[in-house]
Amino acid sequence: MKIAIQGEAGSFSDEAARTFIHGCRVVPCSVSAEVFDAVQAGRVQAAMIPIENSLAGSVAEHYDLLLARDVFIIREFRLRIRHNLIAAPGVRLAALQKVLSHPVALDQCRDFFRKHSKIAAVPFYDTAGSVKHVMSQNLRDTAAIASKQAAKEYGAKILQTSLEDDKNNFTRFFLIQRRKRVLPKANKTSVAFSLRNSPGALFKALSVFALRDLNLSKIESRPRRGRPWEYVFYVDFLCGEDEPARLALRHLAEISEFVKVLGIYPAAS
Amino acid sequence: MKIAIQGEAGSFSDEAARTFIHGCRVVPCSVSAEVFDAVQAGRVQAAMIPIENSLAGSVAEHYDLLLARDVFIIREFRLRIRHNLIAAPGVRLAALQKVLSHPVALDQCRDFFRKHSKIAAVPFYDTAGSVKHVMSQNLRDTAAIASKQAAKEYGAKILQTSLEDDKNNFTRFFLIQRRKRVLPKANKTSVAFSLRNSPGALFKALSVFALRDLNLSKIESRPRRGRPWEYVFYVDFLCGEDEPARLALRHLAEISEFVKVLGIYPAAS
Repeated sequence: MKIAIQGEAGSFSDEAARTFIHGCRVVPCSVSAEVFDAVQAGRVQAAMIPIENSLAGSVAEHYDLLLARDVFIIREFRLRIRHNLIAAPGVRLAALQKVLSHPVALDQCRDFFRKHSKIAAVPFYDTAGSVKHVMSQNLRDTAAIASKQAAKEYGAKILQTSLEDDKNNFTRFFLIQRRKRVLPKANKTSVAFSLRNSPGALFKALSVFALRDLNLSKIESRPRRGRPWEYVFYVDFLCGEDEPARLALRHLAEISEFVKVLGIYPAAS
Repeated sequence: MKIAIQGEAGSFSDEAARTFIHGCRVVPCSVSAEVFDAVQAGRVQAAMIPIENSLAGSVAEHYDLLLARDVFIIREFRLRIRHNLIAAPGVRLAALQKVLSHPVALDQCRDFFRKHSKIAAVPFYDTAGSVKHVMSQNLRDTAAIASKQAAKEYGAKILQTSLEDDKNNFTRFFLIQRRKRVLPKANKTSVAFSLRNSPGALFKALSVFALRDLNLSKIESRPRRGRPWEYVFYVDFLCGEDEPARLALRHLAEISEFVKVLGIYPAAS
């Protein structure tokens, strides 16, 4: 099974794909739009996209693309994010002057830089890309922070594991496909909708779930293109294709400008 | 009046500060935490922070900092974002091979790159920083995309104005101060709260506004630190210090784990 990801080989999306879809072949793409293109054109069977990190929050671009593109969420996964200090073989911690990584990863490893005040944190475009860079340039005073998959991918060595300050560091991923498909035991629905601009509009929209005892697990808002200060709302609720969900969605359609079901899938454990 | 901003001189925050606070002295800071530090320590009288762009969405880090820090929103402003093509004096459009800017700015000027397919869009850490770089390196085949303020700041020349694809491009800014202060004609309130994890919790929270006919203009959610998949909600509603707002906030406190009023201020026109 070919699975597209955004980012370099060895990224956390790569780790998620390999962890949850055994025997898959990962196809790295440089930007997210390309990932969705590959799914829509049928060049890959699916894509693994991060949607939300428990510390950094939502991946806004992926919310926008789920709305704009003809794809469907088939499954969700949660990956524990473990940051590793990675250097070229033979390089030791004492030799380090710089550590490269994506700014979000650097920010999640502040304690490490506090303890090692002589090591400078240097922002880089990508976590796995920073390992690739350290290895291709054969840097001896510079390490990277990335997944263990990145160390393996580029033949680098892990100097220290679990650099992250907060161990409650998880990323939620969606497996998306072109074809609408609902797996058995699907018990969660993701939906996007936009409301007419009237007082209490969002309250009324949420009532369609509350009145049927459907529990929301997430709400997100994103700007509506071409309509400044109007929003698209994204809601996840804990119900699959059962009657209350069907009724709630029909009710939501009554009061919304549009409703799009993004996926119905088994909730990650 | 000294006003801290995040980013280089010539950034859109700089433009906002100079446009809306006449005669202010702008103090550039490299990261947002430093901006809030400067306000809290009294090294500046205020800070001008972007909170939301009508195309790109919310500035998540600033929501987190408004909650974490002891500051207060005094005013809000909306700045029309105009992207300009900026190069060293004497450099002409025909000579350009590369254009540098922040990835968000590049993404908002796709039509320009479609029309000029020989010019490569190169991501850079900052809009104004890209002008500074072009000028300090005296680049003759490279331009930048940034505010007109950036061209002025670094003695560069504007080759083309209004490069942005979508003219509905506005950024909403907050002016924040250390001291709680409510200006006359304040008619908008920003509040952050977190809910006990129970079915319909958000619906009940929004009912405190709906039951009093208070109109929401924005809702945002951010992860709660140390509690994966729980959220802090940020709501703006259209009311100042009047009775309905007071009652709504008291009601909200009954059902929330915490409520923090981030500011009460006159809505931007």
